[in-house]
Amino acid sequence: MITEKTRVDAKKLTDFATRAFQKVAVSEEDAKITARILVTTDLRGVDTHGVAHLAGYVRSVKRGQINRKPDVKIFSLTPATATMDGDQGLGFVIGHHAMVEVMQRAEKTGAGFIAVRNSTHFGTAACYAMMALERDMIGIALTSGLPGVAAPESTKRAVGTNPIAVAAPAGKKPPFVLDMATSVVAAAKLEVAWREGASIPKGWAIDEEGRPTTDPTRVLHGGGSMVPLGGTPKLGGYKGFGLGVLIDILCGVLSGSSAGIILSNKPGVRGNMFCHFFGALRIDSFLPVEDFKQSMDEMIEAIEALPTLPGVKKIYVAGGYEAEIVKEREANGIPLRAYVIQDLQELAKELGIEYDL
Amino acid sequence: MITEKTRVDAKKLTDFATRAFQKVAVSEEDAKITARILVTTDLRGVDTHGVAHLAGYVRSVKRGQINRKPDVKIFSLTPATATMDGDQGLGFVIGHHAMVEVMQRAEKTGAGFIAVRNSTHFGTAACYAMMALERDMIGIALTSGLPGVAAPESTKRAVGTNPIAVAAPAGKKPPFVLDMATSVVAAAKLEVAWREGASIPKGWAIDEEGRPTTDPTRVLHGGGSMVPLGGTPKLGGYKGFGLGVLIDILCGVLSGSSAGIILSNKPGVRGNMFCHFFGALRIDSFLPVEDFKQSMDEMIEAIEALPTLPGVKKIYVAGGYEAEIVKEREANGIPLRAYVIQDLQELAKELGIEYDL
Repeated sequence: MITEKTRVDAKKLTDFATRAFQKVAVSEEDAKITARILVTTDLRGVDTHGVAHLAGYVRSVKRGQINRKPDVKIFSLTPATATMDGDQGLGFVIGHHAMVEVMQRAEKTGAGFIAVRNSTHFGTAACYAMMALERDMIGIALTSGLPGVAAPESTKRAVGTNPIAVAAPAGKKPPFVLDMATSVVAAAKLEVAWREGASIPKGWAIDEEGRPTTDPTRVLHGGGSMVPLGGTPKLGGYKGFGLGVLIDILCGVLSGSSAGIILSNKPGVRGNMFCHFFGALRIDSFLPVEDFKQSMDEMIEAIEALPTLPGVKKIYVAGGYEAEIVKEREANGIPLRAYVIQDLQELAKELGIEYDL
Repeated sequence: MITEKTRVDAKKLTDFATRAFQKVAVSEEDAKITARILVTTDLRGVDTHGVAHLAGYVRSVKRGQINRKPDVKIFSLTPATATMDGDQGLGFVIGHHAMVEVMQRAEKTGAGFIAVRNSTHFGTAACYAMMALERDMIGIALTSGLPGVAAPESTKRAVGTNPIAVAAPAGKKPPFVLDMATSVVAAAKLEVAWREGASIPKGWAIDEEGRPTTDPTRVLHGGGSMVPLGGTPKLGGYKGFGLGVLIDILCGVLSGSSAGIILSNKPGVRGNMFCHFFGALRIDSFLPVEDFKQSMDEMIEAIEALPTLPGVKKIYVAGGYEAEIVKEREANGIPLRAYVIQDLQELAKELGIEYDL
């Protein structure tokens, strides 16, 4: 029997996801990279972006919408910067290699940046930014996508949910890991509500005429749009929108591709067209790493000690809550919703691989 | 007679501001840099951050709170990165030189970054980011300050309004210039409301118990706080807060100073203690500049052509509206509020310089 949330072991889940990708002719190395990132996402509690979408990624590879053997090219004219053409390969693998590339550049020059075109969906941006942590660097990962978010005062979609992730190490405290859509919420939160037949809070989305809506269907399967962080112009909607456009510039324009609003109107551009931007800053090129980490701990401890509103346990710095979830899930397993379990079972059957979670 | 808004000539205003700084023994070069940035801010329509505060800056220099002859030091271990100690000099001058420094580094390596400690208020971040435009670079300017913004679900201040500015050139269209506080609004907007005895919109601030307030006095002269971009947790307040903390990390922690929440509790730290972070990316190290600019134009034109809500004339990309204001004010002069004119006249009298605006 499948309970509403079944706990599965992270290691087993990673192995299962790896086998699924290998079964559709993804190389062992690439399958492992992708599976690790997906399961890390679930471990961090971001259930909307992990193995809940495994079947979708595997089927996209199977159908050829994601290129299983991409001819990835890197172009570079200066020591600190580069561009990459992902040749429509798995976004996870492209993101992993792009992040390795910027860290190598940061090792030599102090900073490294790469703009990536022709990629596909790479899951959560945090997983790439966090790769910098073990090398005592600050990691940056951005991605653009096709428009789903309306400009403030408009009725039509202008930018993707275009997330920003930045990770910075601390000492005793968990690292700072910010990973945020530049819309009020990520699209996946609307998908969860839609799957569960639930309404969404007012302020997340508008309908096709620009009126606030609480019905996720109007956005996911209608002419509605998500709303940029800030919401209305009076409350800063132009700020969230500005960040979304900035990410389109760094990912889409700077990589030699285009902004989402242009790509979405080009004939033949598939829905899985994504551009990314990665960066790394070497901390010890600014100050001794130990000083940085001690200063981070001081800041985080001071914020965590702030008084809270009644009923609120603790104020978290970005990444702190996720670090607690990782510990709990590493010990007790990853809770998966019934429909995710079902999805994975169907996928196993479809691929002819063992379901052993 | 002073009308409610008197128009003054930008050139004359710059000369006046230059003379005011020189009169308190700021060097001609530094006075010119500072005056140019202040008046550029007014030209761009950001009346809250321009000459409205000239008297305050001049008096801070006079009182020795801003060091008129700072011993500014740059430390660098790698080609792309550096740190700077501003020795409590004029933030405008420090920001200008720091931005020149990162552009020189970007010229050589493709990217340049500098973290600056011991600076003072530098006005609007946009003015530094925009310095990159004429060199066909993307410019980045961030600044931290003492806490004025509460963490979501807390009642106490945790971070400054910590603005982000990024500028990127376009071709025929005005450049992209994003300059945003990571709070719902900048502190100066509360100051304007307070001066005018007006209330502020709900959603900008909370009182000392965490309840929404429309009274700017409770924040400026009480225990209230501003609110991070996004507002409540459900609408993304943790995102605005996360950005605020990120800026404290890049400006305060990475420069070897500290986050605002730590600085504000240190004895002897003055209210004019600011840290900054500047960056530059050379566009032609990613793709040909002309391709970048054409792609920017395409994106901006597509966004400007989006349908609007009833009563809204046009959707702007960040910097587009300001570019229109610059044109109008260069032609017709900068409108100054009555109390700003009065301030400047008093300053002239106090310094014994001619008031000729």
